[in-house]
Amino acid sequence: MSELSAQPLQGDPAARVLVAGASGFTGALAAQIVWNHPRLQLVAATSRSDAGKRLDELYPRYRVPIELTELDLDRLEGINAAIVAYPHGAAAPTVAALRERGILVVDLSADFRLRDRDTYQRWYGEHGAPELFGTGVYGLSEIYRDQLRGAKLVATPGCYPTASVLALAPLAEQGLLGEVFVAAMQGTSGYGRSSDDLVHFSNMTENAFPYRTEGHRHRPEIEQELAALGSPVPVSFVPHLLPLDQGELATCFATLGEPTSKQAVQALYEERYGAEPFVHLLDGPPNLRAVRDTNECHVYVTVEERGRVMAFAAIDNIWKGASSQGVQNLNLMLGLDETEGLL
Amino acid sequence: MSELSAQPLQGDPAARVLVAGASGFTGALAAQIVWNHPRLQLVAATSRSDAGKRLDELYPRYRVPIELTELDLDRLEGINAAIVAYPHGAAAPTVAALRERGILVVDLSADFRLRDRDTYQRWYGEHGAPELFGTGVYGLSEIYRDQLRGAKLVATPGCYPTASVLALAPLAEQGLLGEVFVAAMQGTSGYGRSSDDLVHFSNMTENAFPYRTEGHRHRPEIEQELAALGSPVPVSFVPHLLPLDQGELATCFATLGEPTSKQAVQALYEERYGAEPFVHLLDGPPNLRAVRDTNECHVYVTVEERGRVMAFAAIDNIWKGASSQGVQNLNLMLGLDETEGLL
Amino acid sequence: MSELSAQPLQGDPAARVLVAGASGFTGALAAQIVWNHPRLQLVAATSRSDAGKRLDELYPRYRVPIELTELDLDRLEGINAAIVAYPHGAAAPTVAALRERGILVVDLSADFRLRDRDTYQRWYGEHGAPELFGTGVYGLSEIYRDQLRGAKLVATPGCYPTASVLALAPLAEQGLLGEVFVAAMQGTSGYGRSSDDLVHFSNMTENAFPYRTEGHRHRPEIEQELAALGSPVPVSFVPHLLPLDQGELATCFATLGEPTSKQAVQALYEERYGAEPFVHLLDGPPNLRAVRDTNECHVYVTVEERGRVMAFAAIDNIWKGASSQGVQNLNLMLGLDETEGLL
Amino acid sequence: MSELSAQPLQGDPAARVLVAGASGFTGALAAQIVWNHPRLQLVAATSRSDAGKRLDELYPRYRVPIELTELDLDRLEGINAAIVAYPHGAAAPTVAALRERGILVVDLSADFRLRDRDTYQRWYGEHGAPELFGTGVYGLSEIYRDQLRGAKLVATPGCYPTASVLALAPLAEQGLLGEVFVAAMQGTSGYGRSSDDLVHFSNMTENAFPYRTEGHRHRPEIEQELAALGSPVPVSFVPHLLPLDQGELATCFATLGEPTSKQAVQALYEERYGAEPFVHLLDGPPNLRAVRDTNECHVYVTVEERGRVMAFAAIDNIWKGASSQGVQNLNLMLGLDETEGLL
Repeated sequence: MSELSAQPLQGDPAARVLVAGASGFTGALAAQIVWNHPRLQLVAATSRSDAGKRLDELYPRYRVPIELTELDLDRLEGINAAIVAYPHGAAAPTVAALRERGILVVDLSADFRLRDRDTYQRWYGEHGAPELFGTGVYGLSEIYRDQLRGAKLVATPGCYPTASVLALAPLAEQGLLGEVFVAAMQGTSGYGRSSDDLVHFSNMTENAFPYRTEGHRHRPEIEQELAALGSPVPVSFVPHLLPLDQGELATCFATLGEPTSKQAVQALYEERYGAEPFVHLLDGPPNLRAVRDTNECHVYVTVEERGRVMAFAAIDNIWKGASSQGVQNLNLMLGLDETEGLL
Repeated sequence: MSELSAQPLQGDPAARVLVAGASGFTGALAAQIVWNHPRLQLVAATSRSDAGKRLDELYPRYRVPIELTELDLDRLEGINAAIVAYPHGAAAPTVAALRERGILVVDLSADFRLRDRDTYQRWYGEHGAPELFGTGVYGLSEIYRDQLRGAKLVATPGCYPTASVLALAPLAEQGLLGEVFVAAMQGTSGYGRSSDDLVHFSNMTENAFPYRTEGHRHRPEIEQELAALGSPVPVSFVPHLLPLDQGELATCFATLGEPTSKQAVQALYEERYGAEPFVHLLDGPPNLRAVRDTNECHVYVTVEERGRVMAFAAIDNIWKGASSQGVQNLNLMLGLDETEGLL
Repeated sequence: MSELSAQPLQGDPAARVLVAGASGFTGALAAQIVWNHPRLQLVAATSRSDAGKRLDELYPRYRVPIELTELDLDRLEGINAAIVAYPHGAAAPTVAALRERGILVVDLSADFRLRDRDTYQRWYGEHGAPELFGTGVYGLSEIYRDQLRGAKLVATPGCYPTASVLALAPLAEQGLLGEVFVAAMQGTSGYGRSSDDLVHFSNMTENAFPYRTEGHRHRPEIEQELAALGSPVPVSFVPHLLPLDQGELATCFATLGEPTSKQAVQALYEERYGAEPFVHLLDGPPNLRAVRDTNECHVYVTVEERGRVMAFAAIDNIWKGASSQGVQNLNLMLGLDETEGLL
Repeated sequence: MSELSAQPLQGDPAARVLVAGASGFTGALAAQIVWNHPRLQLVAATSRSDAGKRLDELYPRYRVPIELTELDLDRLEGINAAIVAYPHGAAAPTVAALRERGILVVDLSADFRLRDRDTYQRWYGEHGAPELFGTGVYGLSEIYRDQLRGAKLVATPGCYPTASVLALAPLAEQGLLGEVFVAAMQGTSGYGRSSDDLVHFSNMTENAFPYRTEGHRHRPEIEQELAALGSPVPVSFVPHLLPLDQGELATCFATLGEPTSKQAVQALYEERYGAEPFVHLLDGPPNLRAVRDTNECHVYVTVEERGRVMAFAAIDNIWKGASSQGVQNLNLMLGLDETEGLL
């Protein structure tokens, strides 16, 4: 395969990377981030539906001048790592095939996020690679940093769990969470490239609405992670679609197991996130423009008069909520600086 | 004063109406609705800042071809009713002066919504007409219809309380509400005409954010009304600004005093709202486009797996959340059909 | 067929109307306008792709509570008039079938707009009902009002020709036009409901672009009409897509056959459009919000320093540029007041 | 003054830079670009209205963590270069004061763009530093590259002239231009930070309109530059405001002095722009998203059937149309690679 790179690599690449599923929103962005990464080399970007087209034709603003090809599992020599941007279900068999060939895999789908088989089956159906089920490391770098170093298969979290868990983790770790209610909001890039009436500009402009009010797949994922942190609490969750492209907000209400002052809660967050390179604790409410096109998560927490916590986290849903978080994971897997190519 | 009317009145007008503060978003809309109303006659629209301009110059889309004048309290002969669209604080003295002259008043400000003086003072400061404090009828027609018939002074509810209370009223009336958490969202028309950096198109496009996270004035109003209905419960409330013009959504989470099935809750709502002309109970989540430029409130309620209620209400914040609800109130005050001029 | 109507008809309906192709943007709007029309009765709205769905499910904001059916040409008894909202090519055979049954037809497609067969064929391909070619009246009411009264088949103009011709007609009629250059702009509703990447909200937000730069089908239509008015001049034309839903602007530059002052040109427009119910001559540049959801065309003309004319026309592309202009035509065909149901 | 820099400078800075007027849209962006520039050091960012605030408070997305100060002309020691982002009129005296102190100046205002005093006076009024009038080099790097190397005072072109002249330069240089008509479009960032009703989100969403139809100040600038290139032709020009933040399109119609084929015209452009680092010649119409947040200019040219040229240029109005073009100029003034800090 050709060896292309946007900027002079600093020495030998740490990995030669394949992006599978590069014609969708998150795959294309992942290809761009790898393309511009000083230690990674993008060697192939594949797409079934758009093979033969150039990526910079489909996404001019990403400026990645390579041709999309069909994935050929028999011609992967020299590839060390892959980012898989397939829909759930379709991802697992490809992930398995790549792992068999010894390739490190960052999966952006939901196939390896859940650790309970029944829960997976209930929300997503049959798993496409049952032998690998549960073997991925959950790729929320701020929580699982140690396990991610040297991991072979990483499941990049869902966008809503990324924002929701980062908004609540400092409390969850202390076992302080009582009941949790999350109203989350996202732009249309979260809906994916596949067009339908819903994301037609004529429908979305001057519009906004909740969706999946009877249960969204990201809720069990949020519950799994809060429980893993020490707070096995029920979560009510409802997402909304907003008339914007990139951006996601998790507005979280929580009751507290024991009364805790605003100062104490904010101190907890400061301590927890003070050293995090991508989580910025604000002293007021976050906004989506400030995190756009970044791997940052902006968090604000307060305790309101009624003694309940309101915690907010803003991310770019296709960056920190998918593709750039995938690269953050890959950096850790490869022993690179976590921030490489992401600042 | 000149006697203008957009369409042939059906017989004598039921009232000759003044709109005070007609150069702001809600005042201008109130003027338009009165202008097109078959039983009301718009006789004056006033503005301090824009006196001398024509209303259809400021708001071409409203097509109300009258000149804005300064309010002259000594020249109100012949006026029977007024809609006052002033900021809180400024509204009360003008309302008092109009009432002294025997004029029916629909106030769109917050000055007469709260019934507890201390609460008013805490959130809004000194009241501008203390002798009238608490004498207004709360103008949520769906709740206070009987008191509104024949009322002389009506306080039109805040936009967020309108949506939030309508979303939760059937449960509040049954005393079923436990804890309540409201994430509300609104377009930039709710921010008013007064410009600042925040509502500059360049700031709002591709943006969204929570605001007033340390306490919004509409929270005590929501609590007052839920208590009045039978549920004196604490409410957590946070509003968000969205990149759209008109539209408001209240996403409400509530725990239930006693376990109640989804079917039972939905039946409660059907019974409560079945006969309401402007509240439409949907069988799925509402969206903002469907209520734009209408006096409607679209409600959806469900009980999620964890046994908690999620209730949603969508309104147009400057219509049902302000101006058209003001006219709905005026219809009731005048003994007209509540829907007159609003369908 | 059921007989439905939104509001009490004023006496017997002037026509019982079918809307064919009511699930697309312009067909759905045509159905709504007929539904609310005091002299028309909407008796059927058909759709191949969405038969069985309710129209107010697809377009809640239109509030037309009828079920879409498949068009059955054998069951059209009682129908007097039809609005056909099919794509060009598909429209002609259906129009022919309806005309055979004696039904008045307003066609919204391009199939009957052009009067030269070769030109039609070059831009649109084979015609689907050659025996009817050229028999329609061109439905620009402001120009062809007399021929429209009593017409049996009317071709509603394209949206760009509507705006462009109205912007230039007063000059064209005087034979004053020299060279003409039109930069036109339109919202995404003009692109139709059929989704593709281009009108995905994520592509259109914060975007704008020219399209069909090598020739748009509306150019020969504009040239045909300017010639018919007395100015057989070449027209350069390029359309742009803007990040908004409804709205269209034609910005027209023209050289003048003989030097004419700004005052003289503006006087010409005043005289020409003074009595038109839907064309409003402004004294400054028009904007799209002011014509949204109306049948109006806002025109401004000036002569700039270099002696050339700049003429602007703003319309709502799916109202005056399609559906409401179709009803304006139907009013004329039926001998009704031209403005009935459109103010 | 403190010495701050976002990233390790590559050796000594080529200049220590002041940005004057850094609280407006273009000044803030200029500060960000300098901040991230590997060879420039941002030593001060000044603002009269916002002194004392941090720049990353006003513009979080720019991430420039410095405090705005008031400009003190007596404390400029160590500063080698300045970018002045003042309104026209106010800029000239400050530019003069900076030049007196030997500081290189890139002016973003109109004060030094025009070379004819009468024309300046007619469109802008009295000049604030008449002794310097006409001494600036016109900072369209693609045209004046040689003069910019080593220049002391550079006038960065207006945004519309940047796009319009780049769209037409290859023809102008050949003396091929006949008559020129430009319909230009821009987002709200071009309107500047100063808020008024016009750029309120509630006014701009779902809106678009031409403005300054009786003459825009950028027209004489376009004519000046086309004449300087060899085509002293009259230009008709009208700008439009679009509902987006950053982005500008110049749609140019031109008659040709002698008939020239599409192939010949496109070949001319290829030759002219083939080696330009920031001008990309496309083989189809440009779009605004593709140039957002870049110093690029995307150009497409075609000859339509009537023998007239249509030429399109898309830029980001506050990048290539102002701030990043200013840095491109500064790179040339300092003898740096023109693309430094801009790719």
